[in-house]
Amino acid sequence: MDSVCAFYQAVKEHEVVAGISFDYGAKHNHQEIPFAQHHCRMFGIEHRVIRLEFVGELFKSHLLKSGGAIPDGHYEEETMKQTVVPFRNGIMLSIAAGFAESRGADGLVIAAHAGDHAIYPDCREAFMKSMADAIRLGTYAGIEVLRPFILLSKAEVAARGHGLGVDFSKTWSCYKGGSIHCGTCGTCVERREAFILAGVPDPTSYASNEPLPAKPALR
Amino acid sequence: MDSVCAFYQAVKEHEVVAGISFDYGAKHNHQEIPFAQHHCRMFGIEHRVIRLEFVGELFKSHLLKSGGAIPDGHYEEETMKQTVVPFRNGIMLSIAAGFAESRGADGLVIAAHAGDHAIYPDCREAFMKSMADAIRLGTYAGIEVLRPFILLSKAEVAARGHGLGVDFSKTWSCYKGGSIHCGTCGTCVERREAFILAGVPDPTSYASNEPLPAKPALR
Repeated sequence: MDSVCAFYQAVKEHEVVAGISFDYGAKHNHQEIPFAQHHCRMFGIEHRVIRLEFVGELFKSHLLKSGGAIPDGHYEEETMKQTVVPFRNGIMLSIAAGFAESRGADGLVIAAHAGDHAIYPDCREAFMKSMADAIRLGTYAGIEVLRPFILLSKAEVAARGHGLGVDFSKTWSCYKGGSIHCGTCGTCVERREAFILAGVPDPTSYASNEPLPAKPALR
Repeated sequence: MDSVCAFYQAVKEHEVVAGISFDYGAKHNHQEIPFAQHHCRMFGIEHRVIRLEFVGELFKSHLLKSGGAIPDGHYEEETMKQTVVPFRNGIMLSIAAGFAESRGADGLVIAAHAGDHAIYPDCREAFMKSMADAIRLGTYAGIEVLRPFILLSKAEVAARGHGLGVDFSKTWSCYKGGSIHCGTCGTCVERREAFILAGVPDPTSYASNEPLPAKPALR
């Protein structure tokens, strides 16, 4: 959902060379990747799927098909730590940087936003700044990491995407990777909240529409 | 050659969890990886090969099987730029960081040394420092990037490895990836020079033992 919104904004503001999806053995990759392909096709932009088989084979995370069940409830809860894929953003950004340099691009876009989670060390600002430095310094072109949504909440991302004409029925969030969104895992809870807070119609079919859990106090 | 020496030193100084080789479609991967396996086996240490098929498919470099011929002569020459694999060190370090975090390790070792080349932006000190920051900040364990050879020349690395008992006949450098070392590509020229400067016997069979080219003046 965030990435598709960032893609629509990038298409408006930049000359976009290609879109990249990573198939890293996550339970939901088979749901989100066809949607990514769909949106690239809408604009006639090349879409590439980069397979990272080693993640599923060597890394431990409940997010992966090789891991345990996805927990329910808000992200902030300790259990969501089980869904961390170690250094996932670092790996994806590095590969995107190499691909961008190969294609003669000047930058790459990641849909990191202000609501991203401090439980994921590779979502924190200090990490992102160092990684962006490494990518700028480690490429001939001085590839820039663009984070157009970094000051927006997820609700504001939804509002932005709505304004850009994103068809949210063709976006995927649920970490469980079933045939429809579960409605109860951390990322489904956030998706539902974002649409409500943004006042944007939510076209998603959820397996459970049970009331959203109260947000735990920050610790 | 550098990596094997760093491995022997790491085994002496640390508890080594595993060794990693990357098969990224380079012409010489099939020569260097079995040697890496050999040295890990010597110490009873797990060795993993991580395949990065996307590099050969999507990236452009003469180092790759999908690229053109490897040029001869010193690294400093402009032609050696063709052997750059965009952001290779960034990609490898990121993956190694995720793997280290998955295994509960505290650090990872790269055999970067003082003779590494400014033609490769992802060998420069400024890149390495930012990348090490990103890895420390982007992992729960605060994974440290160790560069034990960063103050050593390649000749000093050879001397160090000799002292550690490395059998250099079981190391590979040549970028051409033939059945024996060519003796004339940039990395073979450096290998030959390093043994001579270090006064260490060179057990390598080279296809050509022609006199080493004079080193071009720094530009």
